[in-house]
Amino acid sequence: MNVLWLENNKITLRDVPQPRKQNEALVKIRKAGICSTDLELVKGYYPYTGILGHEFVGEVVSSSLPEGERLGVRVGDRVVGDINVVCNECEQCLNGRPTHCENRTVLGIINRDGTFAEFTNLPIANLHRVPDSVPDEMAVFTEPLAAALEIQQQVQINPTDRVLLVGAGRLGQLIAQTLVLTGCDLRVVARHKLQQDLLKARGIGIISEEEIKPWRWDVVVEATGSPSGFSLARQAIRPRGTLVLKSTYKGEMNVNFSSVVVDEINIIGSRCGPFEPTLRLMESKQVDPTILIASVFKLKDALKAFEHAAEPGVLKVLIEP
Amino acid sequence: MNVLWLENNKITLRDVPQPRKQNEALVKIRKAGICSTDLELVKGYYPYTGILGHEFVGEVVSSSLPEGERLGVRVGDRVVGDINVVCNECEQCLNGRPTHCENRTVLGIINRDGTFAEFTNLPIANLHRVPDSVPDEMAVFTEPLAAALEIQQQVQINPTDRVLLVGAGRLGQLIAQTLVLTGCDLRVVARHKLQQDLLKARGIGIISEEEIKPWRWDVVVEATGSPSGFSLARQAIRPRGTLVLKSTYKGEMNVNFSSVVVDEINIIGSRCGPFEPTLRLMESKQVDPTILIASVFKLKDALKAFEHAAEPGVLKVLIEP
Repeated sequence: MNVLWLENNKITLRDVPQPRKQNEALVKIRKAGICSTDLELVKGYYPYTGILGHEFVGEVVSSSLPEGERLGVRVGDRVVGDINVVCNECEQCLNGRPTHCENRTVLGIINRDGTFAEFTNLPIANLHRVPDSVPDEMAVFTEPLAAALEIQQQVQINPTDRVLLVGAGRLGQLIAQTLVLTGCDLRVVARHKLQQDLLKARGIGIISEEEIKPWRWDVVVEATGSPSGFSLARQAIRPRGTLVLKSTYKGEMNVNFSSVVVDEINIIGSRCGPFEPTLRLMESKQVDPTILIASVFKLKDALKAFEHAAEPGVLKVLIEP
Repeated sequence: MNVLWLENNKITLRDVPQPRKQNEALVKIRKAGICSTDLELVKGYYPYTGILGHEFVGEVVSSSLPEGERLGVRVGDRVVGDINVVCNECEQCLNGRPTHCENRTVLGIINRDGTFAEFTNLPIANLHRVPDSVPDEMAVFTEPLAAALEIQQQVQINPTDRVLLVGAGRLGQLIAQTLVLTGCDLRVVARHKLQQDLLKARGIGIISEEEIKPWRWDVVVEATGSPSGFSLARQAIRPRGTLVLKSTYKGEMNVNFSSVVVDEINIIGSRCGPFEPTLRLMESKQVDPTILIASVFKLKDALKAFEHAAEPGVLKVLIEP
């Protein structure tokens, strides 16, 4: 089958055998999305060799498990899938933190071929049936939308909170759409006009960096992954406020931890989130990630798709086999 | 009156006029404690000029307020006092965060003469009556013990939690005594033999750095204020665990925030704590800070007291007028 292969910081199109793993379902990819993590992987952010891609919607083609053990997912179902494949035996798994499994592989990121391909493999337990009313171009956003929703899974956002979101790119837009559901007083720092227009279209308030009063925001979400974004977020947070880090950062950052102690700031890292609530929000039309779609490329044009996705201000680029 | 004066990173004994502020109580100092912050202030950690000292127990000598408005504290009462003097008007005060008052002065630390003196001034509202059963040499620890107890005010410590405390100096010993009250599985990294002996005497478990398994501790408290202590604490914490920072750090620190995001770590700064619960714990003999006392100096020998306090492994040095 045709795939987008990453090796030594270089992506190429390749023809590799169709996957066939014991105890896993074979999923035919319908659509897959390019994420900032994919772009970083190509730059060598993390050593990975194999098929790239972890955001997808597909169709179950076959499963090695007997019908009765399929946990509600059957051949022919349209599905999305948790990207962390876990051991169910380590201390993290046994304590209800499977996304932190110590033996995990991660779809298209750590030791597991991804979704820029015609087919992919995932354990049945990772799959979630997509409601009929949620189209492919929406369902393909389940993984990043779930990552956005992880904020509410970790931090209680009060309806009365003043919340500042720094960054309105691919992930930032989805975070804005989920945070606004809490009723909080949300303001978003968005650099590009398209980013601002998408937020305005959904009635989400934007704010310029100059307007941000320091020491005033109950919760600040940092979604730029840049030291300047971190610095802006840090200044904005009130004493005893919560700073949510939604992006990874290159290398190490210099931080004044004395001020974190004096102001009793709470800094919390946030990664993968829950799929089922995300599917519910899409089914009930509380969010609409499809407005982020910039273009859709065929898998044979995946290199062009990556070029487009890397352009400044471009939001979601999709790939379909 | 005689005082210990800090100016340009130099401490001297001086004779200054006895304080007499409107709307504040005059407190005769009975005992005062030297804290690591005092030693850092002398090194120039923060620019401060004036009388040093913020840990004390004293006696109310006079108050400008009429008898009915004294909030339960009367002339002749033995008292301890909150070190943050607040405006009750700023956003932090009005939102229940008075220790973060934007206009605060801080006893012996920010724009307010401290307690290495014969007398000090504090607003009546800052004072707490000391129960008769709590002797001076115990009550003088109220401020640092309250800072230790601030951890439980900010973070829910479950009885089933594995808790690692890095650092067993002045503040670390008090944190160990309060953390152990939760029933948690507490282990303390203590470098000096005296520190270890004090912990053992109270049945508190110690652990060597080599024994610490990474990625296994639900809560880690960093109380060394050193980059190596921070690094040890960071390695020990489990995914989604909580890292409490109880010490300030010189300058900036290099931290890998990507791993904080990937492991969804919660880092929380922690500073001043609540006095009334601390007095209750001393009254009910749940804690005994007096075991930390290394020596007691007269105010006229305060320079010698500071020299002693700065020696490695020395815990609490007290000063009395």
